[in-house]
Amino acid sequence: MRLANYQGRASIVVDGCVVDVERASGGRLTSDPMLLSDLDNHDALRAIASTAKAADWPGLVEARLGAPVPRPPKGFGVALNYKQHALESGRELPTEPHLFGKMENCVCGPFDEIIVPAGRTEVDYEAELVIVFGRVCKEATRKNAWSFLAGVTAGQDVSDRGEQFRLPVKQFTIAKTYDTFGPIGPYLVTTDELANPDALELEGRLSGEVMQHSNTSDLIFDVPALVVWLSRYITFQPGDLVWTGTPGGVGEARNPQRFLHGGDVLETEIEGIGTMRNPVVER
Amino acid sequence: MRLANYQGRASIVVDGCVVDVERASGGRLTSDPMLLSDLDNHDALRAIASTAKAADWPGLVEARLGAPVPRPPKGFGVALNYKQHALESGRELPTEPHLFGKMENCVCGPFDEIIVPAGRTEVDYEAELVIVFGRVCKEATRKNAWSFLAGVTAGQDVSDRGEQFRLPVKQFTIAKTYDTFGPIGPYLVTTDELANPDALELEGRLSGEVMQHSNTSDLIFDVPALVVWLSRYITFQPGDLVWTGTPGGVGEARNPQRFLHGGDVLETEIEGIGTMRNPVVER
Repeated sequence: MRLANYQGRASIVVDGCVVDVERASGGRLTSDPMLLSDLDNHDALRAIASTAKAADWPGLVEARLGAPVPRPPKGFGVALNYKQHALESGRELPTEPHLFGKMENCVCGPFDEIIVPAGRTEVDYEAELVIVFGRVCKEATRKNAWSFLAGVTAGQDVSDRGEQFRLPVKQFTIAKTYDTFGPIGPYLVTTDELANPDALELEGRLSGEVMQHSNTSDLIFDVPALVVWLSRYITFQPGDLVWTGTPGGVGEARNPQRFLHGGDVLETEIEGIGTMRNPVVER
Repeated sequence: MRLANYQGRASIVVDGCVVDVERASGGRLTSDPMLLSDLDNHDALRAIASTAKAADWPGLVEARLGAPVPRPPKGFGVALNYKQHALESGRELPTEPHLFGKMENCVCGPFDEIIVPAGRTEVDYEAELVIVFGRVCKEATRKNAWSFLAGVTAGQDVSDRGEQFRLPVKQFTIAKTYDTFGPIGPYLVTTDELANPDALELEGRLSGEVMQHSNTSDLIFDVPALVVWLSRYITFQPGDLVWTGTPGGVGEARNPQRFLHGGDVLETEIEGIGTMRNPVVER
């Protein structure tokens, strides 16, 4: 299924048309897009998707899509998680993941503006696969890890490098959770839609130029590894998000460096999921 | 007002008795303790508190108190925020706060068990004042900062030092957000109950021994400063929490070091708020 927040309402995309979940269910399911990430609702959503006639529903206008998980109970991001990127930069591969927080306020939609606050001159892009938890998860195993997920989406882990590396206690969380620093979308895609959810092409483009290109098969800690490691001591809820890390090509590592400025357009494309297109504004 | 999560239900403590908000309001307000941190409900709560007759309601049994904000939309903690502690340890005072995340899963009640995961040998205590946002807050000023808060509570910022300082990317967030690593309570106290909310005595005791004692007037970044700094780029919601930092005396800085072990009891007392008493278990 391709699940969507369409004009603020839980929806399923069927043959290019938008099936409204509340209406199609006769009111048994609510309009809140948060229900899309709860696996308890997926049987009902599949029943709706399989019987809906696309012709009965309006055609999709992508610009009306919002974040498929608008209010995650919690979110994390992973640092240093692509092999090629780590090796390029002369680092040894980490033996355990390093994570930081991304909070509900940073989430915005796949076509929403990314706001660079006035005076912040080192705001950077990071194209990433984002996993979405679908049920309560504690102490997952590699074998059952994917079964706890409602699906995957694309995301950007926008980062204020000036704040991220501020001494003496370099903490990434604040720098990565400003309002609008976590666009996600365009769809929450269930894993049965993907030929191989562990190997997805991923590309980030800035104002038309390809800045990042990789495949999630290059992850140092793949999706099951992240779910296992995180859920050792942390209980996850439906709607929780993990930004899984970014490949090489970010702005701070370029020569010359290239940061986000008003007028830029940031595109993030993942195979089988779709393309986000976020304009950048300074405010 | 002293607002409480009593056996999972929103309550007000009046003269040592527990007024159930849903029942007292004839069902106009729900039983969800999350309503306590929304300032939009405080006029109605005050009306209930002023007319309730304590004799009509059951007496308070503190052990039945849960976290006054059981599902914060987001939470942050502050590193290095007491002057005496920073100077003692030979550090220069920071010019801007350093923050990390504490997520909803770490929150537990004021008398709940703190779980030290098997094999984690450097789990430490940090007694702290916790502020609770009560309305949407963006770009607060020093003058209006307190007006965005529903009140304050006591908290522990329990920390796995082994994870917190793991190289090469020392990120505090995961180390501080294991399940049960953020007990709060026993009450959400509105600021009108406090003679001076900017100067509260605070004490942490471990198995009867005083380990930390200070006053929140020693904060490097006081409550208004934190609200102003955080809300520059981050929008806050009712129920959001900030653990404001801990004074000297934590276990890792002692000689010999003293970490949490099964059988310990951690007490956290703040003037005008009350005392939490969390048993420690290893599991």
